[in-house]
Amino acid sequence: MDLRDEHPNLGEWNRIIEASLADPDSEPILNLDRDTDPLYDAVFVGGGAGGRFGAAYMKAMGGRPLIIDAWPFLGGSCPHQACVPHHLFSEAAEELDRMRWFSEELFFPKFDPSRASILDLVKLFLAGRGSAHAFMNWQTKEQLDVEFLLNARATIVDRTTVTAAGRTFRAKNLVLGMGARPVWPDIPGLDLPGVLDWVSLVEELDYEPQRCVIIGGSKVAMEYGAFFNATGCQTTIVSRSPLMRTRSLHHVDEDLRHYVVDGMRKRGMTIIEGAHPVRVNGGRDGRVASVTVRLETGEEVDLATDFVFMGTGERPTVDQARDALGIDVLDTGRVVVNKRMQTSVPGVYAIGDMIDGPMEMFKARKSGVTAARTIMGEDIEFDYSEYPDFLHTTYEVTWVGLSEAEAREQFSDVVIIQMPPTVKGLDTPNLPLPCAEGTMLYAFSKPELSGFQKLVVDGDSRRVVGAHHVGYGAKDAFQYLDHLIHRPEGLTVDQLGWMNELFLNPEHFVQLSRLRAGSSDLRDL
Amino acid sequence: MDLRDEHPNLGEWNRIIEASLADPDSEPILNLDRDTDPLYDAVFVGGGAGGRFGAAYMKAMGGRPLIIDAWPFLGGSCPHQACVPHHLFSEAAEELDRMRWFSEELFFPKFDPSRASILDLVKLFLAGRGSAHAFMNWQTKEQLDVEFLLNARATIVDRTTVTAAGRTFRAKNLVLGMGARPVWPDIPGLDLPGVLDWVSLVEELDYEPQRCVIIGGSKVAMEYGAFFNATGCQTTIVSRSPLMRTRSLHHVDEDLRHYVVDGMRKRGMTIIEGAHPVRVNGGRDGRVASVTVRLETGEEVDLATDFVFMGTGERPTVDQARDALGIDVLDTGRVVVNKRMQTSVPGVYAIGDMIDGPMEMFKARKSGVTAARTIMGEDIEFDYSEYPDFLHTTYEVTWVGLSEAEAREQFSDVVIIQMPPTVKGLDTPNLPLPCAEGTMLYAFSKPELSGFQKLVVDGDSRRVVGAHHVGYGAKDAFQYLDHLIHRPEGLTVDQLGWMNELFLNPEHFVQLSRLRAGSSDLRDL
Repeated sequence: MDLRDEHPNLGEWNRIIEASLADPDSEPILNLDRDTDPLYDAVFVGGGAGGRFGAAYMKAMGGRPLIIDAWPFLGGSCPHQACVPHHLFSEAAEELDRMRWFSEELFFPKFDPSRASILDLVKLFLAGRGSAHAFMNWQTKEQLDVEFLLNARATIVDRTTVTAAGRTFRAKNLVLGMGARPVWPDIPGLDLPGVLDWVSLVEELDYEPQRCVIIGGSKVAMEYGAFFNATGCQTTIVSRSPLMRTRSLHHVDEDLRHYVVDGMRKRGMTIIEGAHPVRVNGGRDGRVASVTVRLETGEEVDLATDFVFMGTGERPTVDQARDALGIDVLDTGRVVVNKRMQTSVPGVYAIGDMIDGPMEMFKARKSGVTAARTIMGEDIEFDYSEYPDFLHTTYEVTWVGLSEAEAREQFSDVVIIQMPPTVKGLDTPNLPLPCAEGTMLYAFSKPELSGFQKLVVDGDSRRVVGAHHVGYGAKDAFQYLDHLIHRPEGLTVDQLGWMNELFLNPEHFVQLSRLRAGSSDLRDL
Repeated sequence: MDLRDEHPNLGEWNRIIEASLADPDSEPILNLDRDTDPLYDAVFVGGGAGGRFGAAYMKAMGGRPLIIDAWPFLGGSCPHQACVPHHLFSEAAEELDRMRWFSEELFFPKFDPSRASILDLVKLFLAGRGSAHAFMNWQTKEQLDVEFLLNARATIVDRTTVTAAGRTFRAKNLVLGMGARPVWPDIPGLDLPGVLDWVSLVEELDYEPQRCVIIGGSKVAMEYGAFFNATGCQTTIVSRSPLMRTRSLHHVDEDLRHYVVDGMRKRGMTIIEGAHPVRVNGGRDGRVASVTVRLETGEEVDLATDFVFMGTGERPTVDQARDALGIDVLDTGRVVVNKRMQTSVPGVYAIGDMIDGPMEMFKARKSGVTAARTIMGEDIEFDYSEYPDFLHTTYEVTWVGLSEAEAREQFSDVVIIQMPPTVKGLDTPNLPLPCAEGTMLYAFSKPELSGFQKLVVDGDSRRVVGAHHVGYGAKDAFQYLDHLIHRPEGLTVDQLGWMNELFLNPEHFVQLSRLRAGSSDLRDL
């Protein structure tokens, strides 16, 4: 299907994508210039977040990129199976949670658990995800003017040659952005019906689970677990490490962690830490019926369930690229790159979830852009060793910079500014603080649910070195806080305290800093 | 009641405050050092946001402030009648709005309008506001170590002398932070029962209004109107100027304004612009029954109602201070100050809602701090000519910097980056963009409700000159955007596009900028 001279609108793109997804033999979608034997500056193998942003940036710089993707749409797994459904589900979880807590209070009716359905939300997502796909195809073609070949699996021949849809494409460089997929440990019984992960959940779920056992303690485990539980699906998380104390999450503050994990338990979730799943057991109907777990004590218990969700992490799709190109790959499956996204093979770059670091959107997109800028001759490095991070439970949880404990290791005079304050004699569980936008109803009705916020300051330099938040409405701000505190000059409490707060700001860092900034000798608040 | 040697906890403070409020003859609350005839660096007349922050800053700097307030609590009108209830009501409005749109869809039950009550929310606020008062008294005494005299009306004798509670206090300086109160125009019938403003709403409402006519088009009119309407109280706003096109709001982008005001109409509100209220008419029961309004056409109409809400603005409490001190006061009632908050009388400062500029928290607090720092000998100016602004309808609406039209007046190459995009052939009302945290459920079910965002860029300097947002969860970020774009060096799309976004960020400014940043010649997106 050659669309080079066509300009499908969103509805037309939607139909093309849906038809292509429905038919395994559907034809490739071509948006390619007419010149014979073009030499691309780069072929982006994979048109997910990294490939799409990298190619768009290269094109904007005057280069010539080509994107090839096996899916009939650009944008990759995010709008299809990953971040977008996760955010839809987490927003539902927040709302369900509020409706449960306020059942028959104020304007909230009696909460009706029979209405709350995982399956309904999955269906809502499936019915709507095509719009995001259509928009990205439209935008990439019409606004960003990038050539692409979709619905066609690329075969990497060598470091300048890729074939797809029966054609051969030559490029000065290859940029590998082939993503990652969930990886399951080797536990008996995982082939039983009723065992799903974030991919198969949206593609295959066809019943309403009543109970869920989550294997793994990743972000995904916490986020999907909080959602399942909020719908009324009684959820147990089985994790080797304590939640939020895994290697993949850095800088997690212990007080924040307690607020978050205690909050999950308060909502009826069972969290079993230090436990190992032994096997998944089937029932008479041939479906999953229970999970056998070895506890920290060595004791084995059976957890009855009709749904097992795998939250054990992801691994890059790397085999074909490694075999064809000989690029260096870590034991974790991540491709070795330098700060310019260059692999061990000259002219070959890797980006997104294929490389080390957090499998987050900012890294995917910026690594793609870094590859593009490097190829176009810019001297650019992308250091993602420090970044703001977040997850959702029924709350939005965001943090950046150092935890209090990390700061105390580095600095002799650590100052903590926190809500609610930890002060002797104050009845903090019943203190409606933080009283902040997003948790106002909680603050006035159920103060212990109104969130947590902490600013970590080096008292000597007066610099903010960490910020931590549980609540709603502060995540967006952490993008800018990250930028400000990681600038070479940093961000002092004096600068922060002189900003113009928008009261009742979800985090009260500006005004709380101001209350202490007058003093040359900073103290906790 | 001398509490100097007492350390009331929150519960005890709560009881002291409630008892004081309940009894007009209750005694003053003293937290004063024991020295005889002290000379304060400043007496802060008024312990609202400005007085409390100014006094705390002065104390932190080593100065000696005293706060005197007629109320038995610190914090002023914000936690008692203004910003805190407004935010509680706006959060309820957001939630009610969602529950209405989704009635009997997904996990939302049939919306039950009989549960939605203005009176219930007022009662919820009244039952809880004492906690904020108690905390501020506790914090100011125990953590900030500021002397205060509460539940005692100050009388200004001269510029170094104030009396209160039968005592005379001497100070090197006076800082006037006496706030503002709603002002009502001269319209017959405003004395009828059922005519309220944001003060009397929380203090006096004792029935459930069924219909509301709001007189005035201020932020307060829009915010309270959206709340009343969301509860099911059929609401009409009668405004002389088009909403959001009043002198007191600057930099309002016309596209944002349309999204907001159209959104209010879409939710059933009646907005009559260019109209003048003529009189408020009573019914047989002696209560308000209708409002006579002269339309732009000159025609007069009667709007039946059982509730009139005044949203016509506020005026400082200035008479006593002007009479006693002879300070210059504008026709608007605002006290004339320079950028150090100095009035026309040496040693007398004015802060907060008493001076020109927006009656917002950042200005109140920072003006108090500016007065304190000036008194303590610092060379400090506070320029509040530029600031981020916001209001709530059932949405959170935030903006900073220039509107598109203002930018086009100043710059020849204005670049607009916007969601949803305005592109021919795109079916934008049904486009689920912005698909962003906070409006995910809307994006997938009712795409036209999923918000609006616009970034205004000067294409020549590549600087962001304005940002505009309707949705949820971005307000906090605008504090930092304000700081960044108003720095001398500004914020370029290149810097913005290189930040680490937290996807699905409520505003997509980081990644949208990145999609264009590769080009030396910026274009709209």
